[in-house]
Amino acid sequence: MKKHNFYAGPAILPSEVLEGAIEAIKDFNGNGLSLLEISHRSKDFEAVMAESEQLVKELFGIGDEYAVLFLTGGASSQFYMIPMNLLKDGEKAAYINTGVWATGAIKEAKNFGIPEVIASSEEDQFRHIPRNYSIPADAAYLHITSNNTIYGSQYHFWPNSPIPMVCDMSSDLFSRPVDGNQFDLIYAGAQKNLGPAGVTLVVIKKSLLQRAGRKLPAMLDYKTHVDKGSMYNTPPVFPIYVSMLTMRWIKKMGGTKAMAQRNDEKAATLYAEIDRNSCFTGTVRSEDRSKMNVVFVAKNPAHESLFLEACKKAQCVGLAGHRSVGGFRASLYNALGLDSVNALVSLMQEFESQNA
Amino acid sequence: MKKHNFYAGPAILPSEVLEGAIEAIKDFNGNGLSLLEISHRSKDFEAVMAESEQLVKELFGIGDEYAVLFLTGGASSQFYMIPMNLLKDGEKAAYINTGVWATGAIKEAKNFGIPEVIASSEEDQFRHIPRNYSIPADAAYLHITSNNTIYGSQYHFWPNSPIPMVCDMSSDLFSRPVDGNQFDLIYAGAQKNLGPAGVTLVVIKKSLLQRAGRKLPAMLDYKTHVDKGSMYNTPPVFPIYVSMLTMRWIKKMGGTKAMAQRNDEKAATLYAEIDRNSCFTGTVRSEDRSKMNVVFVAKNPAHESLFLEACKKAQCVGLAGHRSVGGFRASLYNALGLDSVNALVSLMQEFESQNA
Repeated sequence: MKKHNFYAGPAILPSEVLEGAIEAIKDFNGNGLSLLEISHRSKDFEAVMAESEQLVKELFGIGDEYAVLFLTGGASSQFYMIPMNLLKDGEKAAYINTGVWATGAIKEAKNFGIPEVIASSEEDQFRHIPRNYSIPADAAYLHITSNNTIYGSQYHFWPNSPIPMVCDMSSDLFSRPVDGNQFDLIYAGAQKNLGPAGVTLVVIKKSLLQRAGRKLPAMLDYKTHVDKGSMYNTPPVFPIYVSMLTMRWIKKMGGTKAMAQRNDEKAATLYAEIDRNSCFTGTVRSEDRSKMNVVFVAKNPAHESLFLEACKKAQCVGLAGHRSVGGFRASLYNALGLDSVNALVSLMQEFESQNA
Repeated sequence: MKKHNFYAGPAILPSEVLEGAIEAIKDFNGNGLSLLEISHRSKDFEAVMAESEQLVKELFGIGDEYAVLFLTGGASSQFYMIPMNLLKDGEKAAYINTGVWATGAIKEAKNFGIPEVIASSEEDQFRHIPRNYSIPADAAYLHITSNNTIYGSQYHFWPNSPIPMVCDMSSDLFSRPVDGNQFDLIYAGAQKNLGPAGVTLVVIKKSLLQRAGRKLPAMLDYKTHVDKGSMYNTPPVFPIYVSMLTMRWIKKMGGTKAMAQRNDEKAATLYAEIDRNSCFTGTVRSEDRSKMNVVFVAKNPAHESLFLEACKKAQCVGLAGHRSVGGFRASLYNALGLDSVNALVSLMQEFESQNA
């Protein structure tokens, strides 16, 4: 029986990407060796790096004024690398706080400058995306988190920023068309829409390199990695390769526009059921609901463990809410099919008929 | 025709480890999902982390006074994390310079304290391991590199250190019995004897945590990762899993003692041929020769490209010396069989009969 994978990350990948990963471990490019045991400086892997960079540029519609880096350490490492590289001592940067990850980014920026929280939805338990704030023109950059994986909110508009804009896109990367030229730095941990855990995508406008002027360890200076094409040291070969396969799949499927169509349909189907079903209720303000992470709760708290048990029996996995918030979370990443959403909707309807 | 994989890293892995990796991508533990698309907080992956830590402790014979971490960023990130966490401003640490990687570690330490190079083989083109130096008792630690991947030298004795000893074991990890209790911190990039690129092993005596007392980004403080069992953020799931499979294989084969027997035999076979063959010569002082990376050159410089061409034809790959030194390098990591060394030896004999 097929499992329906609603994990928030690491998360579902397209089946042909998994098949491609297996082929490459058996015999990479027909050269008689496994992808796991070849030099990262072999011609075959250099081609993977080049194609991966090119695919990122295509999917964001950006040119050579941007560098595309494949680093490690997750988005959590970008929380400090960004201010370390971009923010001068005593200088301020504007942050919008939309949840746990934004809060983490703000905390880490304090080591290097003054993060000013210009808007926050914290007092509303992060149930909405803030509007109506002014962005200080003297801040080094504006930092936003495009999708809040834990609370289930998402930007469906971009701030009109007079200063460089930095965006954590970890959980909705390539889920919809985004003009990368609106941003000066984009980062994302791979383990949602891009690939397996172990690689972090950073897209940075080259003009921002070494802006802070700090003396940094080589590995923590973006310029090191730009100069060496992400090969200053051994890169995470396998996670990068799988990410490349995923981007090839996105492109073949029709690009980010086609992804948005898939994701819109899945999200509309599930939110419609949440709004209709007498047993459940959504937690996020409707215009800010995430199309990636659908967060909802049982109206009757006693139903929570009951519904999770029903999910398990129906082979729907990964539906427990983040351990910090409880409830339910259905992650609908690019690779998830509408059939899985339909299976969940049927389950919710069955649950209602038995428990309402 | 089988390829003989002499790459210096990423490098050959046991075939049953590759098969185990493929199985886990198809269906992890028979749970109906791929290892690449499950939560790192699932019970199945928590068991992988626990077993991986336990295997490291067994292979080093160490107890709970040590923490075992699976981080990212490679050994290159440890070059700065070690002084950042262990070395106070203005304090000195002793370093022995045995090659490119030790030089890198020394350079990065300068950002945080005073690395004092107490011995170096640089003036000898790193052809030997230094002896006869005194280790300053007031230094925070002594840093050594157990095996020099590029120049092909290796410690076959350990310094008798009155201060905490830190060792980069990236290229000879688990290749021979090592009592981990002699060291206070051991680190290694996985991509030689442990697993695929993308994970870095750090073994640290807990008493050393936060020794420097510096305020650090959470991700750069060892204590963060110790407190969270390497799960402060999403760990590199696949590289860790493959590393666990490799450690299971080492244990099944008879542990590090059995690895040393395999490696001794391979190295003895190849060095004997280098010393016998009139076309080639070794570059490292014989008592310091590495059993992992055998570095040699052609006596006649015109033979260099000719021999590499012959290697290629005979399906022996990865034999070009590091781009900074030229010549030849045969890496004989744990997973390489004696048959591959014999193939190379035959090739060298054939080359001699045709070109001497």
